[in-house]
Amino acid sequence: MGKIKTIGILTSGGDAPGMNAAIRAVTRGGIYNGFNIKGIYRGYDGLINDEIKPFTTENVSGIINRGGTILKTARSKEFETPEGREKAYKNIQDEGIDALVIIGGNGSLTGAMIFAQEYDIPCIGLPGTIDNDLYGTDNTIGYDTTLNTIVECVDRIRDTAQSHERIFFVEVMGRDAGFLAQNSAIATGAEAAIIPEDSTDVDQLQNFMERGIRKSKKSCIVIVSESPKCGALYYADRVKKEFPGYDVRVSILGHLQRGGSPSARDRILASRTGVGAIEAIMQGQRNIMVGVRNNEVVYVPFADAIRSDKPFDRKLITVLDELSI
Amino acid sequence: MGKIKTIGILTSGGDAPGMNAAIRAVTRGGIYNGFNIKGIYRGYDGLINDEIKPFTTENVSGIINRGGTILKTARSKEFETPEGREKAYKNIQDEGIDALVIIGGNGSLTGAMIFAQEYDIPCIGLPGTIDNDLYGTDNTIGYDTTLNTIVECVDRIRDTAQSHERIFFVEVMGRDAGFLAQNSAIATGAEAAIIPEDSTDVDQLQNFMERGIRKSKKSCIVIVSESPKCGALYYADRVKKEFPGYDVRVSILGHLQRGGSPSARDRILASRTGVGAIEAIMQGQRNIMVGVRNNEVVYVPFADAIRSDKPFDRKLITVLDELSI
Amino acid sequence: MGKIKTIGILTSGGDAPGMNAAIRAVTRGGIYNGFNIKGIYRGYDGLINDEIKPFTTENVSGIINRGGTILKTARSKEFETPEGREKAYKNIQDEGIDALVIIGGNGSLTGAMIFAQEYDIPCIGLPGTIDNDLYGTDNTIGYDTTLNTIVECVDRIRDTAQSHERIFFVEVMGRDAGFLAQNSAIATGAEAAIIPEDSTDVDQLQNFMERGIRKSKKSCIVIVSESPKCGALYYADRVKKEFPGYDVRVSILGHLQRGGSPSARDRILASRTGVGAIEAIMQGQRNIMVGVRNNEVVYVPFADAIRSDKPFDRKLITVLDELSI
Amino acid sequence: MGKIKTIGILTSGGDAPGMNAAIRAVTRGGIYNGFNIKGIYRGYDGLINDEIKPFTTENVSGIINRGGTILKTARSKEFETPEGREKAYKNIQDEGIDALVIIGGNGSLTGAMIFAQEYDIPCIGLPGTIDNDLYGTDNTIGYDTTLNTIVECVDRIRDTAQSHERIFFVEVMGRDAGFLAQNSAIATGAEAAIIPEDSTDVDQLQNFMERGIRKSKKSCIVIVSESPKCGALYYADRVKKEFPGYDVRVSILGHLQRGGSPSARDRILASRTGVGAIEAIMQGQRNIMVGVRNNEVVYVPFADAIRSDKPFDRKLITVLDELSI
Repeated sequence: MGKIKTIGILTSGGDAPGMNAAIRAVTRGGIYNGFNIKGIYRGYDGLINDEIKPFTTENVSGIINRGGTILKTARSKEFETPEGREKAYKNIQDEGIDALVIIGGNGSLTGAMIFAQEYDIPCIGLPGTIDNDLYGTDNTIGYDTTLNTIVECVDRIRDTAQSHERIFFVEVMGRDAGFLAQNSAIATGAEAAIIPEDSTDVDQLQNFMERGIRKSKKSCIVIVSESPKCGALYYADRVKKEFPGYDVRVSILGHLQRGGSPSARDRILASRTGVGAIEAIMQGQRNIMVGVRNNEVVYVPFADAIRSDKPFDRKLITVLDELSI
Repeated sequence: MGKIKTIGILTSGGDAPGMNAAIRAVTRGGIYNGFNIKGIYRGYDGLINDEIKPFTTENVSGIINRGGTILKTARSKEFETPEGREKAYKNIQDEGIDALVIIGGNGSLTGAMIFAQEYDIPCIGLPGTIDNDLYGTDNTIGYDTTLNTIVECVDRIRDTAQSHERIFFVEVMGRDAGFLAQNSAIATGAEAAIIPEDSTDVDQLQNFMERGIRKSKKSCIVIVSESPKCGALYYADRVKKEFPGYDVRVSILGHLQRGGSPSARDRILASRTGVGAIEAIMQGQRNIMVGVRNNEVVYVPFADAIRSDKPFDRKLITVLDELSI
Repeated sequence: MGKIKTIGILTSGGDAPGMNAAIRAVTRGGIYNGFNIKGIYRGYDGLINDEIKPFTTENVSGIINRGGTILKTARSKEFETPEGREKAYKNIQDEGIDALVIIGGNGSLTGAMIFAQEYDIPCIGLPGTIDNDLYGTDNTIGYDTTLNTIVECVDRIRDTAQSHERIFFVEVMGRDAGFLAQNSAIATGAEAAIIPEDSTDVDQLQNFMERGIRKSKKSCIVIVSESPKCGALYYADRVKKEFPGYDVRVSILGHLQRGGSPSARDRILASRTGVGAIEAIMQGQRNIMVGVRNNEVVYVPFADAIRSDKPFDRKLITVLDELSI
Repeated sequence: MGKIKTIGILTSGGDAPGMNAAIRAVTRGGIYNGFNIKGIYRGYDGLINDEIKPFTTENVSGIINRGGTILKTARSKEFETPEGREKAYKNIQDEGIDALVIIGGNGSLTGAMIFAQEYDIPCIGLPGTIDNDLYGTDNTIGYDTTLNTIVECVDRIRDTAQSHERIFFVEVMGRDAGFLAQNSAIATGAEAAIIPEDSTDVDQLQNFMERGIRKSKKSCIVIVSESPKCGALYYADRVKKEFPGYDVRVSILGHLQRGGSPSARDRILASRTGVGAIEAIMQGQRNIMVGVRNNEVVYVPFADAIRSDKPFDRKLITVLDELSI
């Protein structure tokens, strides 16, 4: 592969606040350094269906503060097939794209890794997911905004929980990772968090019910990571059954957790990693995710980034425990 | 009944943002005009169980900007019985309370009306409900904040709806009144609102699907008033069945709609009606709700306030229709 | 003048949150009813310099929730001259514009009135100003958002005022009208408001200092309407001089009061009056401002709308007085 | 000194959002681990004047989400004198306080260091300052909230800047450290930042004016760190003089930057360092600041924490430069 002149950029998977800031950073950082930029719409589907158009600095004006992604996003079934990827590569060649920047989460970077193994195209990932579950970067783009959105919502729920002296089970996103649940529980002064990294059984619930509600506190908030089987509804039902007499309610925050104007941190992280992606391309890097660790921009091989064992600081469980007395 | 010296104040029913501002206004307005104020906790239950304490201006310091109610609230079953009301009246006499201010919605004011018919105690109501369904006041305390909360949430959902090109059915509060749904639909640029005041059938949904989605717009938001049978889940299911091929999602905003720091309007409405309640007492008024109509403080007899036919401006349906093209 | 086919729309004067929602409503309401819409950029200057382009429903997509104005705005010196207005009219004819919708405040509607007296062009105004000083409409577009922005800022300042036990003079917009100052003072629980509608002299300040600070309260907020001579700095200086020993600070909120995503109310008011402007044109109205009074859309002749004596409810002064004890 | 039984806690210097969350964490973490907690009011002045009262878990209920500090704060002149510190120590002994936790910035921790050198009392600091200028911790408590507050304000100013096509110089806090200015400039997509860490001369301003305004952009935001001599007013004046023809405005954000409900991050940082302070005391640590570095709780000797050379990542200057094209 020769000199890189044109860089394609796409967003893929679940949208995350800050994706637009990342698109802006890659576009402007690229143009600043002499590259052409092409925007690819609707994730990998847009590569396959050739929904691609040239981007100038104006295309990304006024988007740094907007949620969602101007490039749209999708989870592509077709890109999971060899035929899909072949079509995608053909379009890349036809469009004269020499490198790809993919903004997305675990699944999207896995797709990029496979694609890069099959075809000779440098792929650079940016960690765009609210779940914070990518390895090798302290935070992912979108995580901080979503954490703040949850905190705002739970602060509101606390008002009504206290006024009515109720128990609320609040379900938040993060199916496979409890970062959002555990940290929002600490930040809202919740009484407990139920997370995938830690088992929660009846005894614990009882313990917390006795500690919290039965003494001076009359209301209580439990944050629950979403889960097909053991979500907020499941725990609310169990508490109703095992501790009758409490006024138990459920709130499932749902999709509003994905939207909204990105926080300062997410915009800065997106800007730094976006500029980092262009630098990575100029250095000849490929098949890496750009992250920020210990306040330094780092390059993480895709295979590491998508590891499912991002360390979860178990001390946070102690912090929540001590402070919910 | 002799000269009024001591005023009791309580909040009842579903909590609404601005209730604290109303408690503050009644307390300070009362003290300013020479009355003693007593705070009654947990609504009518607190009257029955004698959860009452004297209030000074300091008790209501720093609460104007806080959601919920420092007096707590409840829906009292016991107060619906003659025995309950008898206990309540006995405590009122024992505490030396000469007049009551009740902040609450339809059910709470109905309770006050019945109580005032049975016992010689002047009752003054303040319209504290997010639903805006009290007759004789342009707005209720809490309505404006909840409207803004819904708008903020739907703005966020719009980000993700557009990024993924999805149809969202968003369920908001207002079981018997579509004020929240219709007005939030206009304010968010939603494509449709489904409200109790207006029937929505398959034809209409089809009409709107064809008008909106099938042309240039690829995403769509429908706001749905909560309903035991025909809520957001019901309509989402029907659309999935009758218009397969769309990516349909549901978001039920739930209890977070009740909380949060009250908006400027709600704080002002609460302050004006709170001061108005004290003036009403000084004028010898009883058994009325204090509202604001055409920017003037008005007194509305309880029997009128709780009428179920607060006029709904049907022109708002036209406004939404024209602007969602 | 024959049948109206094409409507031009512009924003003028100081920008106000909700102007975009108004542009959207006029554009979509117009197109819905069969008109062509042309957007005119930079207020009256754009009429003079022919900065005009056709608008479709897509031009106004995704703007209902955005502050500022996509049409830009300006205070045109040239339009104040007969020559300027002549150029403007010539462009109107060349562009085939049959009616004008002007979104702006006092000065902008005055310009429209003069223009409509000189040339045969129906002019419809929308009340777009944060100051709320247009007669005949209960609220102006932008006023509610700015009120909430001020309240948010003062809530923040209160945190630091209380922590340090300081006196803050906070200057807000509204040079000739105290609506913002008086209402934000009530909404934030400020100790006093200094407004153009009411004289504030040393005695009053002393009175309030003695009442508030010298008793239990140790911090204090005074909201001051901006004024060339007697703004927040002036009063802060006087208090420092006459009441030494207090820790006095000044905060001038400035231009951030103009921006931000419009509140629910402002979006709804903009939507209703925008649709109302199209209806006015269809009814053959001209030279009127569309407002909302007592929750009904009304048409107010320009000469009335720009009257400088919009009634100020002096009872609000009493409310603030009683509640700041 | 014998076994530590009672811990005193105070906040000192400029207030920062998250101080309340820190007070809560120290109090609850302390009580959880068997200590008595005493709250000291008004910073070091409260030590000197014996404004001290016992704290229970209830004293810190419902404060995690509130700005300011319930303990009040002050900059104590008297504590800078040996006599003041002597009085303070006497009160500490009389109150039976065995260890002190001080939440504050540079000046406050310097005071703690001096005090601990003179008297046998373990002092533990928490980094409570919006400026982020304490060495050895990645972030200080309050920095993230203030950064987000600035970003929100500048987003608003951008609306009006674009609508009027103006140049805004926005002054933000951070007299000796450009963290707030540089990072908020990146996060808001500002065109430039003027910070103490970097000289900005006429040539640069010219360069940026030519690059930005004179091409496609018609509005521009420059973020300026506050400075006695070279603040936003100074640069605005120079630009007006040297580049006449631009519409230049100034906005000084001022004290509202200190207030507001703390962000998720600040609450978590405060909670972790608060628990960390108790652990430090249990380990026999003294005269250290508790920080978080690389997501780990760390102990930093006071002498290091107050070093004036916290590293500023100059790459952020490049990021801003590339992205403001």
